[in-house]
Amino acid sequence: MKQRTMIDQKPDKITITDIARMCGVGVTTVSRAMNNHPDISEETKAMIMQVIRDNHYVPNNSARNLKRSASKTIAVLIKGITNPFFNHMIKVFEKEIQKNKYSFILHRVDENQDEVEVAIELEKEKRLKGIVFLGGQFSHANEKFKQITVPFILSTGGVTSEVGSENYSSVSVDDFKESYKMVDYLCGLGHRKIAIITSPPDHVDVGTLRFEGYLKALEDHGITFREEWAWYMREDIEGFSMDNGYAVTKHRLSANPDVTAIFAVADSLAIGACKAIFEDGKRVPEDYSVAGYDGLDISFYYNPSLTTIRQPVEEMAEETIRILFDMIHKKVKHTHRIFPAELLARASTRPLL
Amino acid sequence: MKQRTMIDQKPDKITITDIARMCGVGVTTVSRAMNNHPDISEETKAMIMQVIRDNHYVPNNSARNLKRSASKTIAVLIKGITNPFFNHMIKVFEKEIQKNKYSFILHRVDENQDEVEVAIELEKEKRLKGIVFLGGQFSHANEKFKQITVPFILSTGGVTSEVGSENYSSVSVDDFKESYKMVDYLCGLGHRKIAIITSPPDHVDVGTLRFEGYLKALEDHGITFREEWAWYMREDIEGFSMDNGYAVTKHRLSANPDVTAIFAVADSLAIGACKAIFEDGKRVPEDYSVAGYDGLDISFYYNPSLTTIRQPVEEMAEETIRILFDMIHKKVKHTHRIFPAELLARASTRPLL
Repeated sequence: MKQRTMIDQKPDKITITDIARMCGVGVTTVSRAMNNHPDISEETKAMIMQVIRDNHYVPNNSARNLKRSASKTIAVLIKGITNPFFNHMIKVFEKEIQKNKYSFILHRVDENQDEVEVAIELEKEKRLKGIVFLGGQFSHANEKFKQITVPFILSTGGVTSEVGSENYSSVSVDDFKESYKMVDYLCGLGHRKIAIITSPPDHVDVGTLRFEGYLKALEDHGITFREEWAWYMREDIEGFSMDNGYAVTKHRLSANPDVTAIFAVADSLAIGACKAIFEDGKRVPEDYSVAGYDGLDISFYYNPSLTTIRQPVEEMAEETIRILFDMIHKKVKHTHRIFPAELLARASTRPLL
Repeated sequence: MKQRTMIDQKPDKITITDIARMCGVGVTTVSRAMNNHPDISEETKAMIMQVIRDNHYVPNNSARNLKRSASKTIAVLIKGITNPFFNHMIKVFEKEIQKNKYSFILHRVDENQDEVEVAIELEKEKRLKGIVFLGGQFSHANEKFKQITVPFILSTGGVTSEVGSENYSSVSVDDFKESYKMVDYLCGLGHRKIAIITSPPDHVDVGTLRFEGYLKALEDHGITFREEWAWYMREDIEGFSMDNGYAVTKHRLSANPDVTAIFAVADSLAIGACKAIFEDGKRVPEDYSVAGYDGLDISFYYNPSLTTIRQPVEEMAEETIRILFDMIHKKVKHTHRIFPAELLARASTRPLL
């Protein structure tokens, strides 16, 4: 009879005090282990986490947070959900939003949908407290922005000067400047025939801004831009993807035998370009220097490691949520934060002798 | 005065009929262009999409779908949100769920949280109609599963025989069998000293099942397993990540000079392993054959292309949602779908001469 009772006992009845007792430590120590606090040895932490796992203990506050957050919801609207650049950001968003005891809806926006329009509907339907736009493009959206009545922020999108900055907050890098930095670096290595893989000319997004930085850097180095160096992403393949960089480079490489360097406006595009170069029997960087943009983890792990512009994604994601909550709590009206990015010179580019 | 009126007119007042008129085509043709219908030329489609963009036209049905879906919500609970393996799945989930006029909540579960516990709370709070568990581990969860009162499905998680299959539906590959297939392939190439990068022994997840497949394949080839070939992922680094594969291989490589092949239970781990090999001044596959698992896009684009087990992610994701809605509509009780995976023999492995 006694055994029966034990089996029926729900495992979530275990408390933090039980765990502490089993481990022979105090409740504070268990809490520190769970919260990755620095003041606890790795061994003690590992032991405690093992006991937690063995007993299927669920910290109470995670359940409590969920209950409290019932009607407080933030939506993140995202274009290009398969882009690995957004992965780390989403992880940070989710964590920071939960920390504020809000809950989190991730809403994918189709390539041909207007994200502001989607946001206006979503706001009404879900009674949102705030909105993050991730990626996407926002030119000519002023009239529509006014229909959004909750705080919102544009994060890492292609924000152009056409959009009045009094209508929204934003977190980004200076895409023009950072792109200029990379092309200036390639010119400094002696390259003068530099192709760019970027967004098609009728788009307005980060690709457009990075293209402008490229043009300015060429100009400042006394290089006359040639139209055949603009390798535009294909519209029938997902934007900023390895597949797109691969398809474009496959098509353009043989027609541009004198190009010595390729600047792709995203690491994923650069990786696709490298593959097309390898399949052509050529090497990186011996035959072509290839540079990317974003600083994805894979840019380090790729062979060769990619020269790239590292955006501080985690910091940018944290700042996005911080500003959004400041707006929700009426501490600020509109804020624009521009983060510096870092040029990482690695093995995929070389000086032209 | 007239101009004023125009500025105040909301751009979303434009209808599909206006677009058709501007393009000089019928409404059906515009609809076909927007829905990627095959019966329309690429040129016409491009022209129509351009007019749609220029006029900021938002298809009415996307707004309508949102309204209808007000209280019908599916939650996807995910462990390891930065794992690129899940990206394509999430994209398909979102699309299929929207197609069913439901809306979609993505909820990240921490490494040390019990996803079933989180689901129980989330179900109450959000009045969910269904739940998808993505990744994660589910041994000993039977008692808790019973507390979930809406249909749910385990997708691509480590489902072991310990969990009674009458309590849930699932979609997966046969991790044991597919892993066996890969190790059998490596043995067939002449490798007899094969390391495996996998989950720590106290875990129960896909890594455990793949480890068992590895052990059985060695046994069937008359190879005695050695404990030093088990390269366990580090617990202080995110599981199944490039960082983890890199750290583990850095540490183990020099201590195991006679190993000729490394089987990593995820492509991300395999890529990290390759990087560690390169930094050691060695080559893939000349010095070490390296094989992965999952069939991520990057496994094709990596240099060298990775030999891997390709899981049919899109199909698995579609089937997950199909089964879930069949359960919601009471068409089925519990279904278990096991998909076949495919061994892709590529450049990262070679026969041992």
